[in-house]
Amino acid sequence: MVNIKLSIEYDGTNYLGWQRQPQGVTIQEVLEDALNKITGETITVIGSGRTDSGVHAISQVANFKTESKITPLQFQRALNSVLPKDIIIKESAEVDLDFHAQLKSKSKIYLYRILNRGYPTALQRQRLWFIPDPLDVSNMAQAASMILGEHDFRAFALSGSTQTTVREILHVSLEKKVDALIEFEIESRGFLRGMIRLIVGTLVQVGNGRITKEDFREILESGEKKSFVYTAPPWGLFLKEVRY
Amino acid sequence: MVNIKLSIEYDGTNYLGWQRQPQGVTIQEVLEDALNKITGETITVIGSGRTDSGVHAISQVANFKTESKITPLQFQRALNSVLPKDIIIKESAEVDLDFHAQLKSKSKIYLYRILNRGYPTALQRQRLWFIPDPLDVSNMAQAASMILGEHDFRAFALSGSTQTTVREILHVSLEKKVDALIEFEIESRGFLRGMIRLIVGTLVQVGNGRITKEDFREILESGEKKSFVYTAPPWGLFLKEVRY
Repeated sequence: MVNIKLSIEYDGTNYLGWQRQPQGVTIQEVLEDALNKITGETITVIGSGRTDSGVHAISQVANFKTESKITPLQFQRALNSVLPKDIIIKESAEVDLDFHAQLKSKSKIYLYRILNRGYPTALQRQRLWFIPDPLDVSNMAQAASMILGEHDFRAFALSGSTQTTVREILHVSLEKKVDALIEFEIESRGFLRGMIRLIVGTLVQVGNGRITKEDFREILESGEKKSFVYTAPPWGLFLKEVRY
Repeated sequence: MVNIKLSIEYDGTNYLGWQRQPQGVTIQEVLEDALNKITGETITVIGSGRTDSGVHAISQVANFKTESKITPLQFQRALNSVLPKDIIIKESAEVDLDFHAQLKSKSKIYLYRILNRGYPTALQRQRLWFIPDPLDVSNMAQAASMILGEHDFRAFALSGSTQTTVREILHVSLEKKVDALIEFEIESRGFLRGMIRLIVGTLVQVGNGRITKEDFREILESGEKKSFVYTAPPWGLFLKEVRY
């Protein structure tokens, strides 16, 4: 038996997220079906974690075990010829049998992209959140920096999250880039359900002046979900990197 | 009567190109229908030129005349709320009545993007041509430089092109960018039908060694369409800028 580690890029637009579920097509399911077609085995693919419906991955990591003699490079090529064009295997490598994409991950980095100008974009419309109202990026960046370190993020979690809502943010940045693009990056060992999109959506409320930086701090410190806690749409969010 | 100039970005994936035609939906038609809805007038939109089926525009330019009192900014906003999300008005301005998007254009700049690495991309798959075989970019760039200046491009034209097949290339470049991306840019007052995609497709034959730089020169100088004159797919091509 061998253990194969995959690095996967996907356009989440047409999927109900990573994790297999009865309501519709997911990335995990499509990958498992493709591996079944290639190997004839029933294979379970373990992802580093879920991504929500519509969320993209620049580099999701997963692993699976197989009795097949197919080499990692052959797996990459076979998968890329069988998979739909919105799911791509970027790398494939044999790893130790105890490698587990979820349990061994040290941290994950997510990227959120906002386009802030008067008119939207046709060519990148499914890859960012278009916001026509002017945003104060400096205020947003200051509010974003408040979440660095350990906090109870229960105000920024969808119900259904697990036991503790305390998480440590290892790195966070919010910057204006070229072409009216604002990029938000966040790194943590783990995130709560909906957490990044709730944080970004609420930072945008700081940016458009609906709430102040101090309001943001109060939401974070009190853990109380105020009415202006807002969820950013999934199409601006990318799982950028999983660290091991 | 006023004359309105538009700068338009579009994702050409779902259109049979710019110019109105009976076989299917085109950008011009969708724009004219939207203007009809907004003004109640029957409006003809004049583009700087056609783009082929599936070709994108970073900035196509068009103009139309109207009796409407709607301001240019209002036109931009109204169009962006009525148009499908794959067509966006980037700018709208009132211009002199004699401005004509096609006849007054001085030159057009097109961009062609190639991804040259072992595996494709999911997130940008409709925005570039994926070529897994190694390409010699230096040879391609040298061949590309041969087309600078005035030449008879009949070997690089689809049938149905007009009278003369002589065109002047004002600027041409082919460069390796980050992330295995190769960008080809070309500027001319006008292009023959299919010309850019035929040039790029044939440059790729130089890059993969199927023909030499000297073969390329011979095709250009003889005007004879050899079997290895190849058409690049439309999804890598962008109308980048129209100069006036």
